[in-house]
Amino acid sequence: MGLPKEVNITEVCPRDGFQSLPDHVPTETKIDIINRLIDCGFSQMEVTSFVHPKAVPQMKDADEVLKGVKKSNNVLFRALVPNLRGLERAIAADVEKVKLMLSATDSHSLHNANAATMEAMDKFIPLVERAKESNTKVAGSIAVAFGCPYEGEVPTDRLLEICQRYEDMGITDISLADTTGMAHPVLVKRVISTLREEKPHFHFSLHLHNTRGMAFANAIAGLEEGITDFDSSAGGIGGCPYAPNASGNIATEDIVHGFEEMGIKTNIDLDAVIEVGRILAEQFPAQSDSFILKAGKSKDLVTAPGKQVKIGEK
Amino acid sequence: MGLPKEVNITEVCPRDGFQSLPDHVPTETKIDIINRLIDCGFSQMEVTSFVHPKAVPQMKDADEVLKGVKKSNNVLFRALVPNLRGLERAIAADVEKVKLMLSATDSHSLHNANAATMEAMDKFIPLVERAKESNTKVAGSIAVAFGCPYEGEVPTDRLLEICQRYEDMGITDISLADTTGMAHPVLVKRVISTLREEKPHFHFSLHLHNTRGMAFANAIAGLEEGITDFDSSAGGIGGCPYAPNASGNIATEDIVHGFEEMGIKTNIDLDAVIEVGRILAEQFPAQSDSFILKAGKSKDLVTAPGKQVKIGEK
Repeated sequence: MGLPKEVNITEVCPRDGFQSLPDHVPTETKIDIINRLIDCGFSQMEVTSFVHPKAVPQMKDADEVLKGVKKSNNVLFRALVPNLRGLERAIAADVEKVKLMLSATDSHSLHNANAATMEAMDKFIPLVERAKESNTKVAGSIAVAFGCPYEGEVPTDRLLEICQRYEDMGITDISLADTTGMAHPVLVKRVISTLREEKPHFHFSLHLHNTRGMAFANAIAGLEEGITDFDSSAGGIGGCPYAPNASGNIATEDIVHGFEEMGIKTNIDLDAVIEVGRILAEQFPAQSDSFILKAGKSKDLVTAPGKQVKIGEK
Repeated sequence: MGLPKEVNITEVCPRDGFQSLPDHVPTETKIDIINRLIDCGFSQMEVTSFVHPKAVPQMKDADEVLKGVKKSNNVLFRALVPNLRGLERAIAADVEKVKLMLSATDSHSLHNANAATMEAMDKFIPLVERAKESNTKVAGSIAVAFGCPYEGEVPTDRLLEICQRYEDMGITDISLADTTGMAHPVLVKRVISTLREEKPHFHFSLHLHNTRGMAFANAIAGLEEGITDFDSSAGGIGGCPYAPNASGNIATEDIVHGFEEMGIKTNIDLDAVIEVGRILAEQFPAQSDSFILKAGKSKDLVTAPGKQVKIGEK
């Protein structure tokens, strides 16, 4: 299958998951969950978004959260920033990497950022300069990369054009997001193979939603095209912005379990993630969506050898 | 990806779905659902199981159901039979194909059929002879083919041994079932590639459960190894026998939607299946599990072109 031996999972529940909850998660809960997630072994975590508290009240305590969480040299904190003000807050909070928010299509960009895509990218220029000054890493993102609710399928040329603009700014670490859950394995393979062929020096990662049940299949399509970085959310916290009761982020325990079953190392303590997922599912039952929390690990299903039924025993 | 242009989906809700419900589904409801499913375009449907009513009370009206459903030349009815008595009932009901129930492992077979696997197969011999006499087609099945709750992973040699025994009886139409939801794409590829290499004249089909979120990925692994026949259940009706609240059968609307998005023809009327799924989900909400029912089709998400937001419009 041409699968890698090892992958990196970026935990995004503290940002994407908590942002999607209807109510603000108490600051101490966020800090507790992030601390527990650090202990699971993630090398990267999307901890918050430095947006205006009126725009996204769920993230109003971003600065406090960053102050409260324990320090660890093993995990790199990534935060979303929409503008220079957000970047300054991220720098003040000692965040090592910021991720820029961008939509693949003008229609989606106008809805989310009040600017067409390229106009939004122009506004990134001073941010990138400021980040460079402060030695803050910058990652780019492309939302609705595999389908837009207004424009449908996104031409790969459009994605390449956006990549080029990112590259002109010195950004080659790009998260491709299936915001709408419209991706399918054939599309993922087509898009990734073209992007990686045209931009072999880029580092692409996948942010997949399980809205239509294809997230894990899409992850494998990505793996087979050389992707080794994936976002996921513990407990499957985070819904779909376009269908109220539908699934959103693939659950971390589901992707880690699946990859490990397939012999791909994630370096994540699966049992520890399941425990965090369980805590999250207890607190936010309506927003949790996880197969492994319901079904348990494959290995746990198997009766201990001593308990096996022998022929004729029954 | 080496994908086929066309696949066959066998609808199994009337048997697998209804059998797994805690209460008996009224006969008239079963008949209504089967009639609606016939109109969706399935070329094969697993309509019932001719088991002893005390063993599986949910299937006690198998004969009545078969009498009540409309006749159609477009769909082949398949029914499960555990023994000669069941086969006689199936023949009397004019069922065209019977499927034999078998477990890959002795432990599972002892639990389910009170006999070790090969012993259970010996009991098939008179059934197969009787079926031949009456021109009834016979398919074999292998439950827990991708993992057993008592014995764990099943050696491929064991599956080959079972296939050989089936072949000795003249049966080469075999359904491989991931009863426990323990399959993953690497395992599916390894098992199918070996089976198809050793038994190229066999017709293998896949019966996948989405217990751990990997059913669609496993289906694609199957497709890539040449499988073109899949079971699924409208509305995702049918749970996991080993984890009370976990997912079971992959929903028909999910697999049809996914395949069609990927450009693979199913010849199923997706909207009609979604409608049947909706009826099922309304009647059996606790047992329904379907992404497309919650999220809608990818294509439905996209705003009609006339409604697209133009640059600067917002």
